[in-house]
Amino acid sequence: MKNNKNTAVIIGSGNVARHISLQLQKNGIKILQVYSKTKKNAMLLAKELKATPVFSLKGIDPSANYCIISVSDDAVSEIGKKLRLKNTLVVHTSGTVSMDEIKKCSSSTGVLYPLQTIQKNSNLSFKEIPLLIEANSKTSLSTLKKLAGTLSAKIIEADSEKRKTIHLSAVFANNFTNHLFTIANDLLKKEKLDIKILLPLIKQTVEKLEKNSPSKNQTGPAARGDKKTIKGHLKMLKENKKVKAIYKMFTSAIQKK
Amino acid sequence: MKNNKNTAVIIGSGNVARHISLQLQKNGIKILQVYSKTKKNAMLLAKELKATPVFSLKGIDPSANYCIISVSDDAVSEIGKKLRLKNTLVVHTSGTVSMDEIKKCSSSTGVLYPLQTIQKNSNLSFKEIPLLIEANSKTSLSTLKKLAGTLSAKIIEADSEKRKTIHLSAVFANNFTNHLFTIANDLLKKEKLDIKILLPLIKQTVEKLEKNSPSKNQTGPAARGDKKTIKGHLKMLKENKKVKAIYKMFTSAIQKK
Repeated sequence: MKNNKNTAVIIGSGNVARHISLQLQKNGIKILQVYSKTKKNAMLLAKELKATPVFSLKGIDPSANYCIISVSDDAVSEIGKKLRLKNTLVVHTSGTVSMDEIKKCSSSTGVLYPLQTIQKNSNLSFKEIPLLIEANSKTSLSTLKKLAGTLSAKIIEADSEKRKTIHLSAVFANNFTNHLFTIANDLLKKEKLDIKILLPLIKQTVEKLEKNSPSKNQTGPAARGDKKTIKGHLKMLKENKKVKAIYKMFTSAIQKK
Repeated sequence: MKNNKNTAVIIGSGNVARHISLQLQKNGIKILQVYSKTKKNAMLLAKELKATPVFSLKGIDPSANYCIISVSDDAVSEIGKKLRLKNTLVVHTSGTVSMDEIKKCSSSTGVLYPLQTIQKNSNLSFKEIPLLIEANSKTSLSTLKKLAGTLSAKIIEADSEKRKTIHLSAVFANNFTNHLFTIANDLLKKEKLDIKILLPLIKQTVEKLEKNSPSKNQTGPAARGDKKTIKGHLKMLKENKKVKAIYKMFTSAIQKK
C-alpha cells in the first residue's frame, strides 16, 4: 500500500477538529475522511472539507499520512481501543489524556495539543498558538514536527506529565480567570455597567506578565494589607456568600505570599 | 484673593500622586506645591515637578485651583479632618473612600479615581484610563470635568456607592486574576516553564470580553463537566492544599452557573 504524501483523516467533528482540519487543508494537507459517531456531524464537516464522511473506524483509509483524533477527553480511550492502522501517524489533541491511550492504534503515535481555547466561531490565527507535541519514537516525532509546523510557528516538545501540568496551569490562568471576570461582571450589572469598563486595567495586568513574574505585579487591598477596604468589601458581599468565600480565600492567599 | 487659572497642589508623593501630577504638568496645569508627611518624599517629587515642597497642611497655597489628595485610603480621612481651603476644588483619588471624608476641606469637593493600577515604573497612557468622577455640586462637577479632561478621554460619573462597586469588581477581575496567574506560574516553574507560554490563551480570553459577557465564554473541564480531568487535576494538587481548595471552589462555582 502506497502512502499519499500529504493526506490526513480526522476523527471527530467538534470545534478543535474543524479548526485543525481547515487549517491543514489551507496548508496543503488533503483531508480524505471525517469520522464521527454522529452521522450528521461527520457529513457536515466532510462537506465543508470536500472529504468523505465515514461512520465506522474500520472504514478509515490506512493510506493516510496522518490521523488526528480530536474528540472529547473521555472518548479518546474508546477510539484507542478500536482504531487499528499500520504506518499512519495517529495523534490525539487532548491536554490531559496520556499518549499511551492510543498506543495500539499504529506503530507511530503522538499528541498534538493546541494550547488555546478553540470555540466554534474563534477567529484564530493558528500560527500564534503554541502546539505541545509528543511522539512515541524519533521517527514519529520528526513526522509530527512536519505536521505541527504546517499549523503553528510555536512548537514545544512536552511529554504527557509536562503537558498535564501545562493544562492544569491553563485551567487556573484561563478558565478560573474567566470566572472571576464573570463575578466582576455580575457585580457591575447592578450598577448598569459591565466588564468592559475594566478592560484597560485587565489588559495592563496581562501585559505586565511579559516583563515580570505575576507575584511581583500583585497589587490591591490584600497585597497592601489595607484592612479597612477589605472589611468594607466583605460588608458589600455579605448577601453573596459564595463570592464572599472566594474574596476571603484570595485575600488570605495573597497576604501569605 | 485671586485664583491662578491653572494651578494645583498635590497632597501625597506616591505613584498615583506622581503620575497624575506629571500628567497635569504636561497638559498645562502648573503644580505649585507638593505636600507629604515624609519630608524627603515631598522634596523629591517637588524637585521633579519644579514645585515647592510643603510639610504642613497649613502651608498649602489657598489660591490653587485644584488640590489633589492622593494618599493611602486610610490617610484620606486624616487629611479630611485637617485641610481647610475655601474655593479650591479638593479631590481625592481613592476607589473606596467616600467623598464625605473630605467635605469640610472646601466649598468645592470631589473624587477623581483612575481605574487603573498605577505602579512606579508604569508606562501609562493616561488618555486610555477611565476616570471615575464625583463632585459635591454642579459647579464643582463642571470644574472637575475640566481637570479630568486634561488627563483622560474616558470620564465616567460615579457616585461613591457606584465607585465602590466598580472598585470591588476590579479586585476580582484584576487583583485576584493576577493571583491565579501566580498559581499558574508556580505550577509551570516545576516544569521549567513560565506563565508566558499561556499568554496567547490569556489574551484570547481577555479579547473575548469585548464581544460577549464572560459567562458565555466559560470553557474548561468544569464548564464541560469533564469529571475524569477534574479528578486527575485534584490528584495532581494533592500536596498543595490551598491551591487545591481554590480549584475545588472554582470548579463548583462554574458548574453551578
